[in-house]
Amino acid sequence: MGRVVTLRCHVRGQGLHEITHSVEETLADAIEGMGLREGLCTLYLRHTSASLLIQENADPAVCRDLEAWLGRLVVEDDPLYTHTVEGPDDMPAHIKSALTATSLSIPILGGRLVLGTWQGIYLWEHRRARGEREIAMHVGD
Amino acid sequence: MGRVVTLRCHVRGQGLHEITHSVEETLADAIEGMGLREGLCTLYLRHTSASLLIQENADPAVCRDLEAWLGRLVVEDDPLYTHTVEGPDDMPAHIKSALTATSLSIPILGGRLVLGTWQGIYLWEHRRARGEREIAMHVGD
Amino acid sequence: MGRVVTLRCHVRGQGLHEITHSVEETLADAIEGMGLREGLCTLYLRHTSASLLIQENADPAVCRDLEAWLGRLVVEDDPLYTHTVEGPDDMPAHIKSALTATSLSIPILGGRLVLGTWQGIYLWEHRRARGEREIAMHVGD
Repeated sequence: MGRVVTLRCHVRGQGLHEITHSVEETLADAIEGMGLREGLCTLYLRHTSASLLIQENADPAVCRDLEAWLGRLVVEDDPLYTHTVEGPDDMPAHIKSALTATSLSIPILGGRLVLGTWQGIYLWEHRRARGEREIAMHVGD
Repeated sequence: MGRVVTLRCHVRGQGLHEITHSVEETLADAIEGMGLREGLCTLYLRHTSASLLIQENADPAVCRDLEAWLGRLVVEDDPLYTHTVEGPDDMPAHIKSALTATSLSIPILGGRLVLGTWQGIYLWEHRRARGEREIAMHVGD
Repeated sequence: MGRVVTLRCHVRGQGLHEITHSVEETLADAIEGMGLREGLCTLYLRHTSASLLIQENADPAVCRDLEAWLGRLVVEDDPLYTHTVEGPDDMPAHIKSALTATSLSIPILGGRLVLGTWQGIYLWEHRRARGEREIAMHVGD
């Protein structure tokens, strides 16, 4: 009885983009007619230079500090990199992606995600360019 | 046929708290009456300053070294932080949470989690205070 | 209607070993007869010194750079380690495992994994020895 739907997210370059509202809307559409109240929602990011993240959505400074901290840990123009053909932000983006999540699963209760009070869902873009990212979303019982 | 139950864990401050036994007990209760032998158990942590972790539960030194290593990588009082209102251990806790897992999925076989011989399930608390953490657990076939 | 199967992977020491083809074959075998077209595939690694990873499989330099970068971040013979009885590569392997994924969930559409164009599935071995690693794979609808 599970379903897979695609969620497309427009990003405006590096940083954390909150997608909680889009995910909740897509979930509401997906379960309409399924009668699903209890289940599991899994998000899967179809890219290797961005991540999925659950983080605090109360103070925007948390997101800015996260972005700054990871950018200091995984620098551009590191002499260690041999994969450099796709630009200085590409290899750091792959490393940041490896250190964070590509898939996330959140239980559904009463037809809604059981997010904690302060939790938001984020698409963490690690490349500089604007663009579109695709998330495959599975909803099952 | 899936079910969602809540697991509450008391933590005694920073560090790894093994919850394997609690998870197994909660799973046994959840599947009693469902007749489920093969399936998937997903744990989802409803907080942004702690993590879920699968690690070795044979030598306690592994957990102490993990805690010490991550504490050295993600320091308190980093001049980079702008989110400082909730105490010196708050922003490091968010970063540690971003670098580790918020959700974990473990297959069920013969009515039990397919944990490896040396694997334990841990709640990794990144804040100093004692308190209670909530894990939403989905069990499905 | 879910199923759990075991995937055994032979590794030739430290580094990223692509397992996309093995996972796809195991999935095809598992869903044959189930009639499953839409669903979720979850991989769970039964070890604490290796990881599962989704990464680019176009340029092998990406994998080499990832391995080199993580090896520089998590060094051997760190005076911080107290768990040293299992060799100099053991505690670094546990730390690397904690910073990366032990479980991964990928939706299934049209009977196939919805991997992105450039995505491959990797078993990231953090120990030096050759050997066999076990992945428990759950396939559900």
